[in-house]
Amino acid sequence: MRLFGSRWVDLPGHVRELPADAGLPAGFRAAGVAAGLKASGDPDVGLLVCDGDQPSSAAAFTSSSTAAAPVLVTRERCRLQGLRAVLANSGCANAATGSRGLDDAAKTQGAAAVAAGVSEAEVALASTGAISHYLPVDAVLKGILQARSQLRREGDGEFQRAIQTTDRFEKRANLEVELSSGSVRLCAQCKGAGMISPRFATMLCFLQTDARLSPQTAELLLGACVARSFDRVSVDGQLSTNDTAILMASGSSGVEVAADSEDELRLGEAIDALLRSLAVMMVADGEGSKRIARVVVRGGSQERAEVVARAVANSPLVKAALHGGDPNWGRIVQSAGGALPAPEPLAIDVWIEGTQVCSAGVALSYEEAELARAVSGEEVEYEIALPGDGAATEVYFSDLSADYVELNAHYTT
Amino acid sequence: MRLFGSRWVDLPGHVRELPADAGLPAGFRAAGVAAGLKASGDPDVGLLVCDGDQPSSAAAFTSSSTAAAPVLVTRERCRLQGLRAVLANSGCANAATGSRGLDDAAKTQGAAAVAAGVSEAEVALASTGAISHYLPVDAVLKGILQARSQLRREGDGEFQRAIQTTDRFEKRANLEVELSSGSVRLCAQCKGAGMISPRFATMLCFLQTDARLSPQTAELLLGACVARSFDRVSVDGQLSTNDTAILMASGSSGVEVAADSEDELRLGEAIDALLRSLAVMMVADGEGSKRIARVVVRGGSQERAEVVARAVANSPLVKAALHGGDPNWGRIVQSAGGALPAPEPLAIDVWIEGTQVCSAGVALSYEEAELARAVSGEEVEYEIALPGDGAATEVYFSDLSADYVELNAHYTT
Repeated sequence: MRLFGSRWVDLPGHVRELPADAGLPAGFRAAGVAAGLKASGDPDVGLLVCDGDQPSSAAAFTSSSTAAAPVLVTRERCRLQGLRAVLANSGCANAATGSRGLDDAAKTQGAAAVAAGVSEAEVALASTGAISHYLPVDAVLKGILQARSQLRREGDGEFQRAIQTTDRFEKRANLEVELSSGSVRLCAQCKGAGMISPRFATMLCFLQTDARLSPQTAELLLGACVARSFDRVSVDGQLSTNDTAILMASGSSGVEVAADSEDELRLGEAIDALLRSLAVMMVADGEGSKRIARVVVRGGSQERAEVVARAVANSPLVKAALHGGDPNWGRIVQSAGGALPAPEPLAIDVWIEGTQVCSAGVALSYEEAELARAVSGEEVEYEIALPGDGAATEVYFSDLSADYVELNAHYTT
Repeated sequence: MRLFGSRWVDLPGHVRELPADAGLPAGFRAAGVAAGLKASGDPDVGLLVCDGDQPSSAAAFTSSSTAAAPVLVTRERCRLQGLRAVLANSGCANAATGSRGLDDAAKTQGAAAVAAGVSEAEVALASTGAISHYLPVDAVLKGILQARSQLRREGDGEFQRAIQTTDRFEKRANLEVELSSGSVRLCAQCKGAGMISPRFATMLCFLQTDARLSPQTAELLLGACVARSFDRVSVDGQLSTNDTAILMASGSSGVEVAADSEDELRLGEAIDALLRSLAVMMVADGEGSKRIARVVVRGGSQERAEVVARAVANSPLVKAALHGGDPNWGRIVQSAGGALPAPEPLAIDVWIEGTQVCSAGVALSYEEAELARAVSGEEVEYEIALPGDGAATEVYFSDLSADYVELNAHYTT
């Protein structure tokens, strides 16, 4: 799937896609190299540096209580509002590695700080790969040296490749955003395919802009947009140990985005559309996925709507039916009912691609052949109404395929 | 898998397995016929009648808020302490069928009452099959007539076949239980393979004994044993709309089991072992399953232990690794951490088949080849210790296979 390739996310009118080789926003350089962490010989160490003189940033992390060492080190020891560099690696998650893992992470942070000419507290760390292995520190250090000599504005493609694992396609963006006081650039490099769950998907995402932002604005924009994108996707309901999203602003364009301004809204719309598009791309790249879905739940309390949306999105039965192009909506009713146990029957309404199939918990008659056609496309929309007015929520999810099982039955061996 | 074929459940010393054709306990007759609900032509309507003059019974049902019509009718209109018959069918769940579904269920209940010569409120209903289809009432009525003429003590095998759906092997028991005042018989017919979750698995289970029990004793024994068996298994984390377990006692042996007696304990041990064995068999028969596991969680509060046990048992990543014979315990740590979100690292210990692989959240070194061998058997045991003394719980679960996906991608079509 390509960026903005889903009917569920539109490119805002004031945002324009640039060619893939347009390079990073002013004030950023990046590189990605193969340092031998991956047996395949693919790139596995990425370095990103911000050269702006008053950079601002914001970061968001997994809520897991078994968070990986790079998450712990970045969250606890970095100046998250003023990051100037990111050191990322694939091939090893550095998770479940205890105090040695923290030491290993700190060593690579120190080396990256020297390479980037910044302080350690200004270097964010991010790792992805198999859990429970120690980081091959020497290989990473070698990679940092190598990456340092290759840092350039056009390095975002190589940086992207260095953070990929089971991704089948690139999740990268080069955008131009028109603001009232001038244009700014917005770039993203993102990875994610398996271990993706609502409550912040298992992924890494790095965003750069040359707009001038306060750290508070960066925090506000990132937080609001993550909640509407990476928080709303599921491949397999599995929260990861390494999730990290970082927004960095170099300020190098000279275009200032003030708090509560019209331009803050416009930049926010651009980031929102970008992150939602990347989130849908991650689902479409869900391990083994061939079809994706959106479940929209309306009515009742926000908590109940949320519980139902996640139960449907994570039901292996719903996901297998989605995979098979089978309009087996009984499983939607079943998973909603299982998620909201109660002796009283649940008066649930269900629509598939706009056709209502269930009213107040009871089957309706409909044209079966037409519905079968409707669920055979690349994207399927389920809509659920719970009793009562009020809440509305949505979750994007992938199907469950035999390929997902094959891929994950033998991932470490 | 055969009854008591797992190392996790022992046959108590005072319980003996009888041949498969030993027949039902005194006071029971059953039959199973093919009435055309299943396209395959396999048996699909079963009738079970208790002829004892003072029968007692107890029943347990799904907690789903989208419970099927047979569950609603049985739960709300039957004398659950004095059931004298069961009408069961496969091939249609009669779920998501609203008031028409209730009317359809009531019609078949009336016909079964006439056929068995009992009152409607003494006939329990149970259905299994695809959700969202209306019950073919005429076919069921025809099946009841046919079954009536075939009722016999040795009809338990045919009754069993009439309730099976995707089951690959029979889950049926003919036991003799030695009590202080004489021997009693204990029989079970059970189905279940997919849509199996903790919080009472998706299944039907019918138990008969010729012991004389008060309804209170029946309720106590069934409740306690369901909580330790069908409540503790997961194939796919999906609570069904139709779960039903019914214990019926004919009293025909003349052997009385008084409340709080030694014999109550002995009969309870027999039912406990039987239901746990049937529950493990259901997991082993989990759709597409080739390997099963038990996760034991100790420490912390009961709630946290429960959350972790279910998160591990329902993680598609843990289940895929189990399928592949891959000792990828990082996913156990990940799923526990995702289930208990917190900023503080979780000091979790993990053992696989008795080998400790993780201490306080940190990888230990171990003999990899030995561990790979240990997870290649038919049953794998994971043990998790959470910080603090206190709780202990367990969940049995199946692996996730490509066959599960294939089976469920095309189940209704």
